[in-house]
Amino acid sequence: MPDFPNDRLSAQFAFLNEADRLKSILRATTLCDGSRRENSGEHSWHLALYAMVLAEQADPRVNIDRVIRMLLIHDLVEIDVGDVPIHSENGQAYASDATIKAEQAAATRIFGLLPSEQAQQFRALWDEFEAAETFDAVFAKSLDRVQPVMANLQSNGGTWITYNVTADQFESRVGSKIARGAPAVWEWVKDRTAAFFA
Amino acid sequence: MPDFPNDRLSAQFAFLNEADRLKSILRATTLCDGSRRENSGEHSWHLALYAMVLAEQADPRVNIDRVIRMLLIHDLVEIDVGDVPIHSENGQAYASDATIKAEQAAATRIFGLLPSEQAQQFRALWDEFEAAETFDAVFAKSLDRVQPVMANLQSNGGTWITYNVTADQFESRVGSKIARGAPAVWEWVKDRTAAFFA
Repeated sequence: MPDFPNDRLSAQFAFLNEADRLKSILRATTLCDGSRRENSGEHSWHLALYAMVLAEQADPRVNIDRVIRMLLIHDLVEIDVGDVPIHSENGQAYASDATIKAEQAAATRIFGLLPSEQAQQFRALWDEFEAAETFDAVFAKSLDRVQPVMANLQSNGGTWITYNVTADQFESRVGSKIARGAPAVWEWVKDRTAAFFA
Repeated sequence: MPDFPNDRLSAQFAFLNEADRLKSILRATTLCDGSRRENSGEHSWHLALYAMVLAEQADPRVNIDRVIRMLLIHDLVEIDVGDVPIHSENGQAYASDATIKAEQAAATRIFGLLPSEQAQQFRALWDEFEAAETFDAVFAKSLDRVQPVMANLQSNGGTWITYNVTADQFESRVGSKIARGAPAVWEWVKDRTAAFFA
């Protein structure tokens, strides 16, 4: 193939092609039918759909379109770092310096494929998600906790069984995060998951 | 498990759980690395990311957030109907009465899982995408044509080889659709794909 100039569109396609690799990053959670492990690309799609459908559950100050964009890019760093299952041993050390450092480096590399001002925009949105302080990020994080619950509910407990999750662990790792961004959703989930942690 | 009332959240989760099945609908196109066929869930995620990154390529009248929402739901009917590869024999008859009827029925069933006013909103957005007449839908359709091109470019021709696609077929089935919504993207793609159809 001839050599084309490395223009703006080429940089954008380089990023979009690199993003394709997220489809090969496997999570601990399975599909709802339990047939195979979910990948982080399809997980990101599902979460964005969650945001569309459950928008009314968010604080009125939440901008759902920003939440959707945040969820579309929130897992891209896993291309370099992999997924850290929330109930795994590493999940407990999620905020470890090593993990944070690796994810920051991944964000620099991956968003850095984009034209520079776009790289900065995407990076700022990812930083905001990670910090989990704004209304948008808090709601996005709550959806990220709800979706695997639905998969586990339909696949006989899924990762709750794999990792021997206790009621207290479920409440602190999952429940509190859902409740922070979407309190009514946590009420719904709590009622329906109680039997698994009895 | 005890019996809970079939409230609004239950309807929304029923829809979100049903949507999970889109992750098991396989497309003709592979991942960029050629390792396996792409599914329509991860494809929908990738397209929404395309919209974020390539927003500046759209007509100024395009609302990118509406395009993203459109792309997130555009393939849900495939849960019932399956994917119809654009270069396959059925792809040529894409607008056949039978296909249109089956997709309409799928839309009624799947969006119908949502609370009624939400079902109507989602259905209207899907209808708009299918009609491909508004600025938003035309841009969304152009992205839906670009993304498989990038996968084929990276996997030695992919479905262009599988289906013996000619230069004329590529131009009419793919090029004209990309050009309609994102003319500069088509110029970029045309230069880089020419060698495959020489």
